Amino acid sequence: MLNYYLGIDMGGTQIKIAVVTETAKIIEETVLDTDVTAKPITVIKNIVNKLNSLKYYSKIKNIGVGIAGDIDSVKGIVRFSPNLPKWKNIYLKKELERLTKRKVFIDNDANTSAIGAFWLDLKGKATNMVCVALGTGVGGGIIINKKLYRGATGTAGEIGHITVESNGNKCNCGNNGCIETYIGVKHLVKSATELMKKHKSNIILKLVNNDKNKITPKILSEACAKNDFVAKQVWKQAGEKLGILLTTILNFMNPDHIVICGGISKANKLFFETAYKEIDKRAFKTAAKSCKIVISKYTSKLGVAGSAMLVKN
Amino acid sequence: MLNYYLGIDMGGTQIKIAVVTETAKIIEETVLDTDVTAKPITVIKNIVNKLNSLKYYSKIKNIGVGIAGDIDSVKGIVRFSPNLPKWKNIYLKKELERLTKRKVFIDNDANTSAIGAFWLDLKGKATNMVCVALGTGVGGGIIINKKLYRGATGTAGEIGHITVESNGNKCNCGNNGCIETYIGVKHLVKSATELMKKHKSNIILKLVNNDKNKITPKILSEACAKNDFVAKQVWKQAGEKLGILLTTILNFMNPDHIVICGGISKANKLFFETAYKEIDKRAFKTAAKSCKIVISKYTSKLGVAGSAMLVKN
Repeated sequence: MLNYYLGIDMGGTQIKIAVVTETAKIIEETVLDTDVTAKPITVIKNIVNKLNSLKYYSKIKNIGVGIAGDIDSVKGIVRFSPNLPKWKNIYLKKELERLTKRKVFIDNDANTSAIGAFWLDLKGKATNMVCVALGTGVGGGIIINKKLYRGATGTAGEIGHITVESNGNKCNCGNNGCIETYIGVKHLVKSATELMKKHKSNIILKLVNNDKNKITPKILSEACAKNDFVAKQVWKQAGEKLGILLTTILNFMNPDHIVICGGISKANKLFFETAYKEIDKRAFKTAAKSCKIVISKYTSKLGVAGSAMLVKN
Repeated sequence: MLNYYLGIDMGGTQIKIAVVTETAKIIEETVLDTDVTAKPITVIKNIVNKLNSLKYYSKIKNIGVGIAGDIDSVKGIVRFSPNLPKWKNIYLKKELERLTKRKVFIDNDANTSAIGAFWLDLKGKATNMVCVALGTGVGGGIIINKKLYRGATGTAGEIGHITVESNGNKCNCGNNGCIETYIGVKHLVKSATELMKKHKSNIILKLVNNDKNKITPKILSEACAKNDFVAKQVWKQAGEKLGILLTTILNFMNPDHIVICGGISKANKLFFETAYKEIDKRAFKTAAKSCKIVISKYTSKLGVAGSAMLVKN
């Protein structure tokens, strides 16, 4: 008999729910708007109602939940979640097990995305993989010997906080020069507005109707496609830093696969071409040659599919 | 019945041989001078002769060998070893198995040292450990779930080639800004001579009889103990960079232990105190708090003891 797994990806705007097969193929899915003002127990009850409406629900024995923030995956507690300000020290595993009579696993969304990438992008055919999530922040997850590697306290894979400049940009985490401060969304936008003080960019200004506050990575990608000097500079500089990060991952971890996912992972060719050139210049040849770097095709599904597969970890 | 394991640490000047218990305790040891001019097969035969003279040799079923360089641990080939210029594509495993009638395992010395640190310094009581070897170069090894982690092609743990400055010092590996170019022996010495152009250091000059070519990390440690300005600067700057490296390891790997070994791991207090201050400033609090950083007490024995334990990996 086939096994089915259920995943829940709790985002700040949407809660995604999916039933997957043993190889993480999604066979049923639904969504729920996230009510960030509601009490956590109300949100949990709404989720359970939604689960009961699923066609495959009766076949489900295990549930996995991915959620941003400081998650105690052993005790099943959401200590803190930036997207859900009311969720502080919530016994999510216990509550959900009580209400569903199923076994529940929880973990942070960077880890569930890494598991998702392992199954959806690599079809489970990797041994040692690092997932790099590029978005507002830079996150990640590590798969070693086909299993999620959590480290001593579950914080392994904080890729965004690898230092690439000793005395570089100040980071929210307290450190200086974290990679996140060079390729995170905020920095890309800031870097564009700074450059625009020196170089007028009619292309960007037209795309944002002269409102610099409207600059986003998407706008910068559009401008780049139109050969805009500032946009090209921004992506080139970010690409160089991404290449340095990937070099550190290659030299240190020698993974067989790196999967890049997240909001800006489809940014544009220049960004990745520049990164790959840096790897050619910088990384150990054997480490670079033996690693396949993949841009995820499933970014929006990784969290929910990976959550479902938590039971296998 | 107790099991005994035999390790061989092939260095450029000495070949260390030891018999260890199941917990890597050394119970018999001997050394052999390394004849770098001899043919590899001659060196191998000399080793076998030495093995035959060991009291415990009859109890040995497995032999492990650690050797610097590019080692294919799967096929058992020494592709290249910087300390042994005549060793190119040598089937060390096959030859040694033929001559000893024992099963032989080989790996590079950074990996065997990591295994040694896991057993000797941590008594096997760690789960996820990173070993940082500070010497002429900066090397390392990674233990995950109590086993050596080799990565896709056996080059995992190249800690010396983690980038800490995007456009930093040129490294032999081709990259810029590798940590090795800031805390390797060469850089420490260079950094001292550079500083001495601006700041006269009578203490260092006295220690080297006015011959700046005689400056070594040991001299710099002695001068530092005598409160010499230049020496203190050198160790402080190196300590800052070491702290940045350890922060990256903590944030990325969240290990329960880091063991620091190698020639300059006993350098001096200022070096490590500065590094620990950087960690306090820079690293994720949970990652830093949950990791015990240990300075190895067994630097000279790690390679040989770890080689003996290769059979368990």
